[in-house]
Amino acid sequence: MTRFALTLEFDGTPFFGLQRQKHGPSVQQSVEAAARRVTGEDATLHSAGRTDAGVHALAMRSHMDIAKDITPFRLMEALNALLRPDPVAIIACQNVPDDWHARFSCTGRRYVYRIANRRPPMTLDRNRVWQVTPELDHTAMHRAAQSLVGRHDFTTYRSAHCQSADPVKTLDRLDVEREGDEIRIHAAARSFLHHQVRSMVGCLALVGMGRWREEQIAEALAARDRQALGLNAPPQGLYFVEALYPTSP
Amino acid sequence: MTRFALTLEFDGTPFFGLQRQKHGPSVQQSVEAAARRVTGEDATLHSAGRTDAGVHALAMRSHMDIAKDITPFRLMEALNALLRPDPVAIIACQNVPDDWHARFSCTGRRYVYRIANRRPPMTLDRNRVWQVTPELDHTAMHRAAQSLVGRHDFTTYRSAHCQSADPVKTLDRLDVEREGDEIRIHAAARSFLHHQVRSMVGCLALVGMGRWREEQIAEALAARDRQALGLNAPPQGLYFVEALYPTSP
Repeated sequence: MTRFALTLEFDGTPFFGLQRQKHGPSVQQSVEAAARRVTGEDATLHSAGRTDAGVHALAMRSHMDIAKDITPFRLMEALNALLRPDPVAIIACQNVPDDWHARFSCTGRRYVYRIANRRPPMTLDRNRVWQVTPELDHTAMHRAAQSLVGRHDFTTYRSAHCQSADPVKTLDRLDVEREGDEIRIHAAARSFLHHQVRSMVGCLALVGMGRWREEQIAEALAARDRQALGLNAPPQGLYFVEALYPTSP
Repeated sequence: MTRFALTLEFDGTPFFGLQRQKHGPSVQQSVEAAARRVTGEDATLHSAGRTDAGVHALAMRSHMDIAKDITPFRLMEALNALLRPDPVAIIACQNVPDDWHARFSCTGRRYVYRIANRRPPMTLDRNRVWQVTPELDHTAMHRAAQSLVGRHDFTTYRSAHCQSADPVKTLDRLDVEREGDEIRIHAAARSFLHHQVRSMVGCLALVGMGRWREEQIAEALAARDRQALGLNAPPQGLYFVEALYPTSP
């Protein structure tokens, strides 16, 4: 068995998420089906994150164990040829030691969330951003976001379905920046809870609209109660952008 | 009658082009149909450029004459509400004098062409770029492009179906720049011939691949013969980005 680290790029629109689902197509199912056609083996895809339906990835990190004698380049080419009808591509592939695990070895994860702050409907960026029509004060959003940075109990900002045993996480970065009518929110942490980024973004947008005071971000955090959440942002603005590992690759 | 200047953003993928076509859907047809539902009038949409099937616009400039008493904001809102199923949006709308003409008053047009210079298939940018897998030397492309800047007979670099009486045009700018695996070609001129940008980009890509010497760009221009064209780049990488006018708006 050889372990292959794969870097995945995908448009999450047609999928029920990265992880295999009973009720619909997933990125994992597409990649595993392609791998079976290439190798004849039932390899499992393990990934750094578990993105929801509609969430995109610019560089998800994953791995698979394969017995067939094949180079990383040939594996990548063969998978891409078979994946082509689906909006999933392997953008890098390499051999890694058997103890390198895409999920458990990962020491940092980075997301970006894109908001289109405009009134006209989206055209080229349809399904690529969250469109918010009221004008957002991104500097107020950035200030309020800083109260979430650090080690906190994020119970308010996680899904009711979150399976993590511990709601305490350390958020390393939550920056809000504007470029024209696009607002980008950059989030970095060792790991995130289910819906954490979308929940934080949703409430920050309420601050940006003036519907929440800046302090309400910290007050909702302190409540440690999902009922205190103001708004969960939709999936189509969210992108998994980077996974960090202490060792190669 | 009041003249309304409209700024259009659209994803060209599902359309047979901007201009009304007998054989399939067009941006013009969508906008005119929406305007008819708003006003009850048969207004004609006039535009600065005539983009082909699959070509996109970030800010196409157009105008329409409408008798109904309606503010530019209300017209824009009503058109956008009706256009919504199609990837076309009115991103700006204002009243202009009757002698302001989106096409004939326009004194400058700007396009950008996006090449994804990579091997894996496109996912999020499917139908948004031209994917070229061999590594492109963008500095050679930029140098070669400079021989096209200025006033020339562009017969080689225009479609056999081009209806312009005069193949002589003045190209103000043709810059090739790279950002990661994306190459962007910026083209500016008072006006362009049919397929001119795509024809120039196609031949520059041949230079980038090393299949054409840099000098062949100028040699093909001097030939003044469509047969001398090396390659016409596909439509999906092309974006109409700006139209300039000497007066308001």
